[in-house]
Amino acid sequence: MQTLDKTHPKLQELKTRLTEIDDINSASSLLYWDQATYMPPGGAAARGRQMATLRQIAHTKFSDPAIAQLLEDLRPYEESLPYDSDEASLIRVVRRSYERAVRVPADFMAKMSLHRTQSYGAWAKARPENNFAAVQPYLEKTLDLCRDYASFFSGYEHIADPLIDGADYGMKASTVRSLFAELRQELVPIVNAIASQPIADDSCLHQTFPEDEQLAFSLKVIEQIGYDFQRGRQDKTLHPFMTNFSIGDVRITTRVRENDLNEALFSTIHEMGHALYEQGINPEYEGTPLATGTSSGVHESQSRLWENQVGRSRNFWKFCYPQLQAAFPNQLSNVPLETFYRAINKVERSLIRTDADEVTYNLHVMIRFDLELALLEGNLAVRDLPEAWNERYRSDLGVVPPNDSVGVMQDVHWYTGSIGGMFQGYTLGNMMSAQFFEAALKANPQIPTEIEQGKFSTLHNWLRENIYQHGQKYTAAEIIERVTGNCLSINPLIRYIQQKYGEIYAL
Amino acid sequence: MQTLDKTHPKLQELKTRLTEIDDINSASSLLYWDQATYMPPGGAAARGRQMATLRQIAHTKFSDPAIAQLLEDLRPYEESLPYDSDEASLIRVVRRSYERAVRVPADFMAKMSLHRTQSYGAWAKARPENNFAAVQPYLEKTLDLCRDYASFFSGYEHIADPLIDGADYGMKASTVRSLFAELRQELVPIVNAIASQPIADDSCLHQTFPEDEQLAFSLKVIEQIGYDFQRGRQDKTLHPFMTNFSIGDVRITTRVRENDLNEALFSTIHEMGHALYEQGINPEYEGTPLATGTSSGVHESQSRLWENQVGRSRNFWKFCYPQLQAAFPNQLSNVPLETFYRAINKVERSLIRTDADEVTYNLHVMIRFDLELALLEGNLAVRDLPEAWNERYRSDLGVVPPNDSVGVMQDVHWYTGSIGGMFQGYTLGNMMSAQFFEAALKANPQIPTEIEQGKFSTLHNWLRENIYQHGQKYTAAEIIERVTGNCLSINPLIRYIQQKYGEIYAL
Repeated sequence: MQTLDKTHPKLQELKTRLTEIDDINSASSLLYWDQATYMPPGGAAARGRQMATLRQIAHTKFSDPAIAQLLEDLRPYEESLPYDSDEASLIRVVRRSYERAVRVPADFMAKMSLHRTQSYGAWAKARPENNFAAVQPYLEKTLDLCRDYASFFSGYEHIADPLIDGADYGMKASTVRSLFAELRQELVPIVNAIASQPIADDSCLHQTFPEDEQLAFSLKVIEQIGYDFQRGRQDKTLHPFMTNFSIGDVRITTRVRENDLNEALFSTIHEMGHALYEQGINPEYEGTPLATGTSSGVHESQSRLWENQVGRSRNFWKFCYPQLQAAFPNQLSNVPLETFYRAINKVERSLIRTDADEVTYNLHVMIRFDLELALLEGNLAVRDLPEAWNERYRSDLGVVPPNDSVGVMQDVHWYTGSIGGMFQGYTLGNMMSAQFFEAALKANPQIPTEIEQGKFSTLHNWLRENIYQHGQKYTAAEIIERVTGNCLSINPLIRYIQQKYGEIYAL
Repeated sequence: MQTLDKTHPKLQELKTRLTEIDDINSASSLLYWDQATYMPPGGAAARGRQMATLRQIAHTKFSDPAIAQLLEDLRPYEESLPYDSDEASLIRVVRRSYERAVRVPADFMAKMSLHRTQSYGAWAKARPENNFAAVQPYLEKTLDLCRDYASFFSGYEHIADPLIDGADYGMKASTVRSLFAELRQELVPIVNAIASQPIADDSCLHQTFPEDEQLAFSLKVIEQIGYDFQRGRQDKTLHPFMTNFSIGDVRITTRVRENDLNEALFSTIHEMGHALYEQGINPEYEGTPLATGTSSGVHESQSRLWENQVGRSRNFWKFCYPQLQAAFPNQLSNVPLETFYRAINKVERSLIRTDADEVTYNLHVMIRFDLELALLEGNLAVRDLPEAWNERYRSDLGVVPPNDSVGVMQDVHWYTGSIGGMFQGYTLGNMMSAQFFEAALKANPQIPTEIEQGKFSTLHNWLRENIYQHGQKYTAAEIIERVTGNCLSINPLIRYIQQKYGEIYAL
């Protein structure tokens, strides 16, 4: 591994400033983690203010013209270095973020931040009451703000591009649209074919599984896979997430449903996948913008690879099912492995994205992506959104939400101030997870056999070597090209789904 | 209650700046809380850096000359207001802190902060190895730094005064010395008289009490007393403390020893006392420097009042002992209340301050205070400190530490960069706790009877009304004068000890 140059004085000065900003951002992240795990209700009001304050200080420090000057002064040095040196990469990545940050006025950020909090509050209240009318004005303002945000990035091809680019650098609405169209064309016949079969019996997952025992089992699973508890921990929350405060402290959260074994188990493996990525970054990058996953899509590819390609595979459960049966003998000792395997891979056209299986999941995402584009383009009004949502669920998934709580109001994303940029990463991640997993198997064909034996280090090391260690050094497109020799493609995902579900459903 | 003026534009500007600083400080406190409760080991390196960064940003923002200008601009406004108006009090308290903050150069603060971390690390390693030689150079540097710190406050009477004043505003070494001399003169004969009696049997406290059950019981106790769990929580740590991130989020920590019922129970009540103070501050003060306890001594008076005057009283256990017996029937159902009462009030000349009973405790504190003064005066060299320590323990408490781990290295204070200013508050707090409790009983003679019935609201409300709500509005001296009509005195503490222990030990 290369190390970041500690000698060039301007680079050193830049790094000092970046580390200070990183410290502030890490404190912000801890404020959020605490809010989502342990904070008593009385802390809420001050907590919102504290997070906004820290975010604003970090933004001000990062948009300081002194940063621009340092980047300018460092240009000859950067140009003298190989593209993939750590030093050139740091300068390049910081320049990219800087140019993005200074386009957005500080007072707009503050307005957006305030609106986010208010909109989230309105949604949290309105959703259980199934009251879309109550959030409609917030959503209309969100749409206006997102359009305003895009306007700071003039010269875009599609109004959603600046929003998408913020999460998945280099991606455009047109590219996503065409990839999604291809994927959809392949997926729909598979979903239809499965839908014509009897629905899998997953009743074995819906017995009573005590919370503490589920948590203990999940922790045991991820410890065996390779999550480093010296540099992380798991806590309970309402909506599971991964967060980190340094490369040495990468935490995950989970939730448990006592009548659904899927929930804690697979959310834990999912968040662990995100965490392995962040735990695997080159420690030399600590405190710099290189020390983070490179895009929403690549991040999701790591959570989904471990959750699905590994965690829902038959080989994995050949190894792990005896442990699960030992943990829950009353519930599972009479359930054969094959029944369990089919239960955790049950495919069903359903209403809720986060509960969807890996075959239908991407159809849920595409609905949101298309509706976002229509809203941003001005081709769909917020007041018509619930109807458009329901119509798409009917046509794409053959189900109609009985109410908006489980329809257009189910996901938090639009209600925390983001229309555009937040959903495409899920499906891009699924595509990449299959693409990366194929490449890993090509390089190490023994991986499936190893998984069956409870050995995960070959896969983990391959991912660390090829993806994790680089952090944000390479873009998503560069990582895909380096790892697979190809550009992003739907084919590996389709091959994976055809092979796995073709076998399960005898298609 | 008065409310802080929201109309004077300069005061509003000052408050905006102060709230931003408070937000940063609250984030720092959360970084510390997390480090002491849940942080995995891998987070340590970055965490030290993050706390230092936030402290430095807060210091820089508070020492901004713009604050001086605002304070200057607000002087006529302040002088037009009554002394005890919230507005005048805020300006006064901020001016006092500002004048203190700007005396100390930022680079000195950074040097001190770095040395603190290094010194703590050396102590944490050396203490279990009983290796004073390893910490001696750190302690010598600490002494130099503390003397340098004092030198920024020229014109002091005693070199320890600036250090004492930082924790107990308005106190001087000479005042503390003379109060301590008086107290010592009264305490020594009592301690000697008790020492001539048979030692109390506290074996009932040293059975096995499972951790979870101890924690559950302690929480039940403080909930009944009046700790607000909507605005706080308890977590486990190594060295218990109270911290807060807003008036709405005041947390405590505890530790458990399974073979010692004293530990979790009384540390929980102690920290709860600190927390009731912070939870009881006027919510209008949120985000300003008024929203904190007014001095180290007054803070300690609240933890000790609830721990000792209430929590170790016979009346309290007349109410609470049946609950304790119900929680631990195997251990306590055959132990009479009186045996338990005498066990928790066992007096013994011992080595460890934090385990000391309320009669001998202050002698431990005075040893440290006197040694600190001698070090700062230059009358004692660090290399001679262990011998001086052991000699004082022999003469004052009749015990000699078998090694430095349980002698001069037992307390963390000197090893985290503070010689001077940290110990006097413990004994000042004990004196005040008795003084305040006497005043509360004078105003509400029914309090002991109420405690026996499990009713704590009269006492709690009296403390909130007279002490808590004011936060830092009044100095310690002002609070004592307002509440008791007298100045700080040793007499109530001596009366309390004579009465309680005279009865227990039939003196």
